[in-house]
Parts: sequence; C-alpha cells; structure tokens
Amino acid sequence: MDLNADLGEGFGAWRLGDDAGLLDVITSANVACGFHAGDPVTMRRVTGWAAERGVAVGAQVGYRDLAGFGRRRIEYAFDELRDDVVYQMAALDGFCRVAGTPLRYVKPHGALYNTAAVDERQAAAVVAAISEYDRGLPVLCPPGSVLAQLATGAGLRAVGEGFADRGYLSTGELVPRSAPGALVTDPDEVAARAVRMATQGTVVAVDGSVVRCRVASICLHGDTPGAVALARRVRSALAEAGVALGPFAS
Amino acid sequence: MDLNADLGEGFGAWRLGDDAGLLDVITSANVACGFHAGDPVTMRRVTGWAAERGVAVGAQVGYRDLAGFGRRRIEYAFDELRDDVVYQMAALDGFCRVAGTPLRYVKPHGALYNTAAVDERQAAAVVAAISEYDRGLPVLCPPGSVLAQLATGAGLRAVGEGFADRGYLSTGELVPRSAPGALVTDPDEVAARAVRMATQGTVVAVDGSVVRCRVASICLHGDTPGAVALARRVRSALAEAGVALGPFAS
Amino acid sequence: MDLNADLGEGFGAWRLGDDAGLLDVITSANVACGFHAGDPVTMRRVTGWAAERGVAVGAQVGYRDLAGFGRRRIEYAFDELRDDVVYQMAALDGFCRVAGTPLRYVKPHGALYNTAAVDERQAAAVVAAISEYDRGLPVLCPPGSVLAQLATGAGLRAVGEGFADRGYLSTGELVPRSAPGALVTDPDEVAARAVRMATQGTVVAVDGSVVRCRVASICLHGDTPGAVALARRVRSALAEAGVALGPFAS
Amino acid sequence: MDLNADLGEGFGAWRLGDDAGLLDVITSANVACGFHAGDPVTMRRVTGWAAERGVAVGAQVGYRDLAGFGRRRIEYAFDELRDDVVYQMAALDGFCRVAGTPLRYVKPHGALYNTAAVDERQAAAVVAAISEYDRGLPVLCPPGSVLAQLATGAGLRAVGEGFADRGYLSTGELVPRSAPGALVTDPDEVAARAVRMATQGTVVAVDGSVVRCRVASICLHGDTPGAVALARRVRSALAEAGVALGPFAS
Repeated sequence: MDLNADLGEGFGAWRLGDDAGLLDVITSANVACGFHAGDPVTMRRVTGWAAERGVAVGAQVGYRDLAGFGRRRIEYAFDELRDDVVYQMAALDGFCRVAGTPLRYVKPHGALYNTAAVDERQAAAVVAAISEYDRGLPVLCPPGSVLAQLATGAGLRAVGEGFADRGYLSTGELVPRSAPGALVTDPDEVAARAVRMATQGTVVAVDGSVVRCRVASICLHGDTPGAVALARRVRSALAEAGVALGPFAS
Repeated sequence: MDLNADLGEGFGAWRLGDDAGLLDVITSANVACGFHAGDPVTMRRVTGWAAERGVAVGAQVGYRDLAGFGRRRIEYAFDELRDDVVYQMAALDGFCRVAGTPLRYVKPHGALYNTAAVDERQAAAVVAAISEYDRGLPVLCPPGSVLAQLATGAGLRAVGEGFADRGYLSTGELVPRSAPGALVTDPDEVAARAVRMATQGTVVAVDGSVVRCRVASICLHGDTPGAVALARRVRSALAEAGVALGPFAS
Repeated sequence: MDLNADLGEGFGAWRLGDDAGLLDVITSANVACGFHAGDPVTMRRVTGWAAERGVAVGAQVGYRDLAGFGRRRIEYAFDELRDDVVYQMAALDGFCRVAGTPLRYVKPHGALYNTAAVDERQAAAVVAAISEYDRGLPVLCPPGSVLAQLATGAGLRAVGEGFADRGYLSTGELVPRSAPGALVTDPDEVAARAVRMATQGTVVAVDGSVVRCRVASICLHGDTPGAVALARRVRSALAEAGVALGPFAS
Repeated sequence: MDLNADLGEGFGAWRLGDDAGLLDVITSANVACGFHAGDPVTMRRVTGWAAERGVAVGAQVGYRDLAGFGRRRIEYAFDELRDDVVYQMAALDGFCRVAGTPLRYVKPHGALYNTAAVDERQAAAVVAAISEYDRGLPVLCPPGSVLAQLATGAGLRAVGEGFADRGYLSTGELVPRSAPGALVTDPDEVAARAVRMATQGTVVAVDGSVVRCRVASICLHGDTPGAVALARRVRSALAEAGVALGPFAS
C-alpha cells in the first residue's frame, strides 16, 4: 500500500502544511507545480527532500488560480487545460531531474480532481496531456471515475486512491463535504479504516453497508492541525497489520 | 550564421509579433516560457511550428513579471532566480518533447538579458540553472559579457549574438536606447551590417571605428512594424553574400 | 440612446482594440479593471481620455483570470466574487477621481456577464458589491436577466443593453455563438438593427419574428477588424434616424 | 504615540501573522492591498475589524510581486509605479467605504519602503500618486528619508516612524539586517526603547551614542513568533510611562 499527501503547497513567503514531517511518513509526494500553489524554490526543496528519503514524486497539477488555491471549478477549453497540465508536469519534471529522481505519476488537485472525476472534457484533457508528455506516468484518481476510465481507455495506468478520513456513500462515492458524516476525525477510526482498505479492499459507508474500495494508495491530508501525528498513526496501524508500504509507482 | 528572434510573446488573448512570418526566416526561435510572456497554448503552437520548419527552439527565460513584460530589473535572490530559470526551461522542454524536437539553447530576455550581462549574481544564477538542468544547453548572450564569461568558466557553451539594427559603441557595447544612434532603421544598412558581422566579424561603431563583433547569431526583432520584411531582407542579403544559414545549436 | 464598448483591455505591453478610435464614437466606456484585462497605466489613460471627451466611465468588472481574459466561467464563492467586484470598482474609481470624472456604472465582463445573467449566486454577489459600494451605480446587463431582476429587487438601477451585431432568438435571448446566425456582419444590417432597437424597441429574430428589445444602450465591439468603422456607421445611422445619443448614466 | 503594524498579509488560502491579535494592541493598521499580499476577502475582513476597534486604516502599498512578497526591488518606470500605487490605495479605499471608516494614510511596503526612502524616482512616484488621489493622506516613512522630504515638499504630511526592535546606526539609520546588532530581541529592551522614543525622541545606537529619533509612530512586527505578546509588552510599557496612545492620523 502507498501513502500519498499533498506537499509543497506554499507560495513565496507563505507556507502551508508540514512538508518535512509528512515526508517521513508517506511513500508518494504530490508536489504542487505553481499554478494553484507551489513556487520554484519550494518545488526544488520538496523534490530534493523526497529524493533523499526515497519518496516517489508526483505532479500535483491544478487550475491556474493562486487566489482560489485551485479549489474553484473553471470551465477550461480542452486545449487550454491540456497545455496547462503539460506545462506543470514538465516544470516539476525539471526539478526531478535536478534532484536525480524521476517524475513518477500525476495527480490532479482540488477542483480539477473533482471535475475530472466526472467531466469528460476535463478528464480527456488530463489524459491527453499525460499521453503526449509521457505515457508511462500513472494518474492517481478516484477508482471508477471518468478520469480513471478515460485514462485506462487511452492505455494509461489509472491508480485508485482512498480517503481514510472521509465518509463514503453506499455508492462508493465520498460523502459531500457539506453533508453529515463527511469527515472522520477519530484517529483510531481513521487508522482502522486505512487498515480495512489495505487488507480487505472495503470501507464501511455512512449507512453501515460495506462498500468495495480497491485502492493502491491512501491519501493523507497535510494541512490540518495534528496532520503529521495522524499520518504516523495510520502508518503504524498499517505496519502492525502487516501491510507492506511503498510507492505504487516505481 | 544563425538568425534568432523572440517568439511566442503573447499571453492568453493578447498577441505580439508575427510568429508564423518570422519562423519562415529565422533559424532559431527564442520561445517565451510564461513568466514575462507566453502561455502554454502558445508555447505548444510555436514549438510545433518550429519543429515542422526545422527551426531550433530555445528557452527565452525571463523575470516573473507579466505586467512589465520582463523589462523591469528585479533584485532577485540567487536561488529564486536560479529556480525560476529551471522552471521555465523545463516547462518549455515539455512542449519540445510533445513536438518531437529537442530544447536546444537558452536565451535570457529583457531586463534579465541586460542584467545578467553585467551582474555576477544574476549571471551566476542563470549559469547554475543551466548547469543543473542540462549542461549541454548553450546560452545565447552578448559576446564577452559577464554571463558569457561565467558560462564559459562553468564549462557551458556561450554563444555570442549581434544586433544588426542597433548602434555599437567603439567599446563593442550597444549604444544605450536613449542615446543618438541607438537604432539603425534603414533596411539596406541593417542588411549590410548583418553581412559585415557574418563575413568579417566586425561592425562599424557610431564614431566610425571598426569594432570586432564575432557572433554566431544575429538577433532580429519581431515586434515592430515591417519586422518580417526586414528579417527577409537580412536573410536575402546574407544568402547573396554566400553566408550559409542554420542553427548554431544542433 | 447610449453606445457602449469595452475599453482598456490591454495588459502591460499588450494592446487590444482601438481605444482612442472608439472613444470618438461611444458615449459610455466599459473600462477593464485589472483582473481579466487592464493595467493601472492603461486605466488612467483611458479614463482620462473618456473624461476629456465627456464619455461616461463604467467599471468593466470580471473574473480574476488574465490567462483566460475572463472568458472562462469560474465557480466563485459568494464572498470571493462580491469582494473581487468591490476591489475592481474601487480601483477604477481611483482613476476616475484622478481624472476628475465620476464612476458612472458597472458592467460585468465575459463569463461573469453570461453567468450573472442566469446564475443567482453570482448575480447576487455582483448586486451585493454594488449595493455596499455605491447604491447609485446602475448595472448594465441583458434586459430581463437574473442580474437585472436581482439588481432591481435590491433597489439598484438595471440598464438593459442590446447587441446590434448579434442574432437573437425568438425568446429574446442571444443566439449562442456556436449556432448559425450568431453574428451579424453586414454593416448596413447592423446599423439598421441599431436604429430599430432605438426607435421601435424591437429586433428581428433569426426565425423572422419581431422580438421586444427595450434597451437604453447598444454594445459595440472593439476588438475586431473594422470595429471603429462599424461603430461610426452605427452612430451615423442613429443620428440620421433622429436618435439623440448620450450616456444612460449621468 | 501611534503603534502601527502590517496586517492582512495573507493571500487566498495562505495566512500570515495574527491579525486579530494585533488589532487589539495597535492604533494604526497597514493593510496590504493585493499586489505583494492581501486579497479582497482579507482586505474586507481586516478593514472591518479595524473599523470596529477604532484602529486607523492605512494603505500598505507595494510592488506587484506576489511571489517575492514585495521584498525584491523592482526598477519601475515612474508612471507605472505611480499608477500601481493609485490602484492599490483606491482598492483599499473601497473596503474602507464598505466598512464605514476612512482611509487614513499610506505606508509603502518592503522593497518599495526601502527604495522610496533613498531613490528620488520611486519616492516621487509615491508622492505623485498620493497627491493626485488625496492630498489629505499622510505618508508613513522613515524620518528624514527622501520620501519624507519629497512628500513635505509637495505639501503632503510625512509622518516618521521608528522601530523599537531594530538597531540604529549613529547616523540615525537602521543597522542593515545582515550586520550585527540589526535586531533587538529582548522584550524588556524593546519596550524600553519604545518608551525612550516616545518620551525623549531618542534611541541608543549600536555604538552607544544617543541619536535623535523623533517619530509619531512605532512599527511593531506581526509575522514572528511571540509577535502579539511583544506588541502587548510595548503597549503596556508605554502606558505605564504615561504615553497616550492613539492614531497619528485622524
């Protein structure tokens, strides 16, 4: 099982999250590429740290929206989104080259993540960007999403990820953030859910039903108080359950 | 002899210069990389056109200053400038990969061009960026400049360029834009100066003295009225003088 | 009848449209405020020119999206859009103060114009911004739109505008740009449609039906070849038809 | 005596400093205006809080440089800087209007603060902006600086400020940040220096000499750990010394 988290999400003088702390826990780092967050100095630093620790580096690509942190859906034209994604992947790849580690995968961020999961045009733009830039790069996304389907159809590898700290509907989708049960905050429960995902490939939905959740990676959040401690808790629980940890992409 | 020009200097809805027209004349295209000009869709388009025509693609790297078009000197810290340059080179390299053509060289733009020609810190930052990203990339710059010296000292190839439409001092430096004789506007004279640079390695300075000007490339300006016609005029004159034209970087 | 056009839509080194040419024809200038286009130097220049000619100045407010020229719909939160609009209105108001002319009205641009015409949240954000900043400012928008309704309901003045060079559906809405009949390109026809709007308050729809189109302003486009000539043609036709021209806001 | 601090220096998802904590201590808030920091939602929030507490609001104007937080000197043309300053003052003035409090003063930020203190062109651009926008606005700056001199010469009010936590040279200038004695970190000493500035108009320089330091405001830093506690310490010490506290601008 892989553990991924968003890193390098500051910009200039501004910091967000504990990059160094998370890098000791995770196996894959989604590094922001400068459009919704991330500046070149930060990209170099985080990529270098990841290389030193053997953590896989992925391109956390997002909308061009620093003011909105990439969380506002934007109705991009196909070619504009495709080329914004190529640009971001390539820019991060440059820092991977400097750090002596390969770029290993791509993960859309924020509103692009959510939109590409359901919207054919935006999903197709992400798939086109990866296909043209490097067909060997897997895309990390919700299992069964439109993005996963289009990526697979185009011959790319789609890697499903789960959220141990988010509630699930019986359909296998996440509970919307505005609805009850959206967040799981008890550390023991989060850890137990991670273990269940890793060992059984299932999750208990908000209605009590057991839902299939076959994922190769679990996403840990880094920008909340106690995030690193919770991440360590999840990692320990997985280790105790005998789950081998390592990057999904190699 | 190589003919280079700045291309892809629009941004979003805004256009600047006649990219397609110049691509039929030049042998090296300095493509803007998004910080002072250039957006991903434009970068892809121009890079693709260049690849089709066998024109060499170089990274026109600049300050992060869209509002100032990279023409305002910025007192960058060393690491910030180095990493901004890595980011821009790598981003353009991504579109080169998509277009199936290699990134061939680097040319600083505007105030970075002028500053790195005389300022050790900024020159060193550009050299560090190229050295770390790809030591095989030549840097196009004024012959004898601080940038040329530091690049050579670091084992990079520095390629000198001349300006057929700019006046020179007897020191070999350009006449400042605010001084008399800064611009040469007569097309015949511009063409003749280009031929002289290519065949004799000299230029006639504003005081009438003949100055050494050993350059491997001549820069043509693209954002003035009649730019393409003037570029064609220079190319024809060079061809008539028996000067072989082609990219300096291969 | 008022004639309005978008002005000041360049950014830094980039220019768009013939501001000076249009200012001799129109009676109201929608000046871009810096988020999708427009920089402070341009805002001062255009506002000053408008003041000299007695042309009314309005705030052309848009999404924060220079790369997309404000033409991509963005799913703003209510408070973010409201405050982006306040910021833009106030910034332009500063240059109005410098120019000695009042800020007279507000017109949303591009995707914000289209979205606020149908979307309650975005329309309400625009209305809230104007209500809080200056309740005396009219908003220029499609007659009968959601924005017009919410503005009126909040006690603001909504001013309807028509497009003489765009096709209309029998519902009174514009023909989508992708559909046949979206654009009217014949100058005589554009002029005749403007006169009809001004004198009869109607427009002939693409199906031949006569549709009510009661507008206090006609929008002229400035970023197409021949835009100024067409604008002059419309103005002459209106004058010949005895239509008095002047700003709707005073 | 006035106590001022930089507020509203986050951007979008990013936060910097404890705005609410400082607002209970200071009497004047330098609110960032969006070019080097500050977004419209933050500007509204901070301005509203300041209005509720009777804290005077000033425009913290800076270079257009989010990535550099306005800390990198930029060689602006006169009109570009003047108009960037007008734009920022006016934008903040809009939120002052919404909050029902007047814009009271202007304070340049970061590299603009340092540059305008010694550079005639940039100082003149700031003075021109204020003169054109509102001649009643004082400018907060180092006493005796080029900016103070040009402002006074233009009929504006220049208000000198001191730094209780910074070392001074015997010339009355600040010790450069890179030199020994640049920072005063002992809270008791910072408080004692503030009292000395307020009651005697002097400061003890790094060489032990007593230097004149007639200031109407003391600047407190907000972005360091313990900043609010230190600010409270200074305020208490001033109160105990019988110094009346209140905004310099009313």
